[in-house]
Amino acid sequence: MPFVNIKLTPDGLTAEKKERLIAGVTKLLQEELGKNPATTVVIIETVETDNWGIGGQSVTKRRQAP
Amino acid sequence: MPFVNIKLTPDGLTAEKKERLIAGVTKLLQEELGKNPATTVVIIETVETDNWGIGGQSVTKRRQAP
Amino acid sequence: MPFVNIKLTPDGLTAEKKERLIAGVTKLLQEELGKNPATTVVIIETVETDNWGIGGQSVTKRRQAP
Amino acid sequence: MPFVNIKLTPDGLTAEKKERLIAGVTKLLQEELGKNPATTVVIIETVETDNWGIGGQSVTKRRQAP
Amino acid sequence: MPFVNIKLTPDGLTAEKKERLIAGVTKLLQEELGKNPATTVVIIETVETDNWGIGGQSVTKRRQAP
Amino acid sequence: MPFVNIKLTPDGLTAEKKERLIAGVTKLLQEELGKNPATTVVIIETVETDNWGIGGQSVTKRRQAP
Repeated sequence: MPFVNIKLTPDGLTAEKKERLIAGVTKLLQEELGKNPATTVVIIETVETDNWGIGGQSVTKRRQAP
Repeated sequence: MPFVNIKLTPDGLTAEKKERLIAGVTKLLQEELGKNPATTVVIIETVETDNWGIGGQSVTKRRQAP
Repeated sequence: MPFVNIKLTPDGLTAEKKERLIAGVTKLLQEELGKNPATTVVIIETVETDNWGIGGQSVTKRRQAP
Repeated sequence: MPFVNIKLTPDGLTAEKKERLIAGVTKLLQEELGKNPATTVVIIETVETDNWGIGGQSVTKRRQAP
Repeated sequence: MPFVNIKLTPDGLTAEKKERLIAGVTKLLQEELGKNPATTVVIIETVETDNWGIGGQSVTKRRQAP
Repeated sequence: MPFVNIKLTPDGLTAEKKERLIAGVTKLLQEELGKNPATTVVIIETVETDNWGIGGQSVTKRRQAP
């Protein structure tokens, strides 16, 4: 009964891609660890690039860098 | 000083219902564990059905199933 | 299918108290929001008082204050 | 490679303030703990006042109190 | 630069299995969403069965049921 | 009333360093965003290097690389 929380920036994240991500993570937990897919929960949360920092600056600013 | 994070799908979740949820969880922690309500924090986060997976598929898809 | 994460300090938190906490939160979500208990997940995480800060100091230090 | 998740209400939270928050937390982790800024991740999540409870009531209601 | 947090019960979770889980999730995010593996962070947290509730009771109690 | 969750590997993380981290983050949120220190909560969680993945491998394995 694993619980998986995935946070990522929303760039091009369609419903179909999310569907494949949910299916893929659930299958991986079943194959590698024998976890029951029926009780595997996956929650996807999108985070705007202004709100995601790495290396001391936001992803927004990082992408603007020349 | 407990911290409680509740994630759920937004279906029909009014401000009044959230108010009762916050009050109920805080009271429960006081009654069962003697936790001080003044420093009990409850954060409610809604997650769209496209972003919530269980059993290897999104709740959106699951609800469409015949 | 709500997901609830409760973080608290471990003081006197017995298995029996945790059992009552899980039952109480699940019941509350059913009664207030009509959520299905079968898919309600509750995860309790204990956090040592050295690792919990409020008001700019750890709970350990706060409790030592005269 | 620390991971920092900051949840707060959105009041007046501009992109510039978020930028300073990301920079400040990253610098703090470097100065106090010697953590490498290049792999320090900071995620800021805003939570509406209806969804944030403290003292058994939402921040929305708390602010309305006379 | 996704961030993935996986919570699961510790049953038989060896270092080798965790290694495969980290590799698998990172690869999945690359293949399905084109995410850069170099900045994909995966954090695995184990949660004791006493602390994991589903269906209103702990996994410990659930497993004892006849 | 911000809530801050810091996850990091336990290397050399003394009580004193955690104390400074809690104080520093709380001060930063006050100075940059005007947040009230009295209701700022900081939770530090340590994650073993086996359980922390980046670039598709655990930090344990990454550190062993020649």
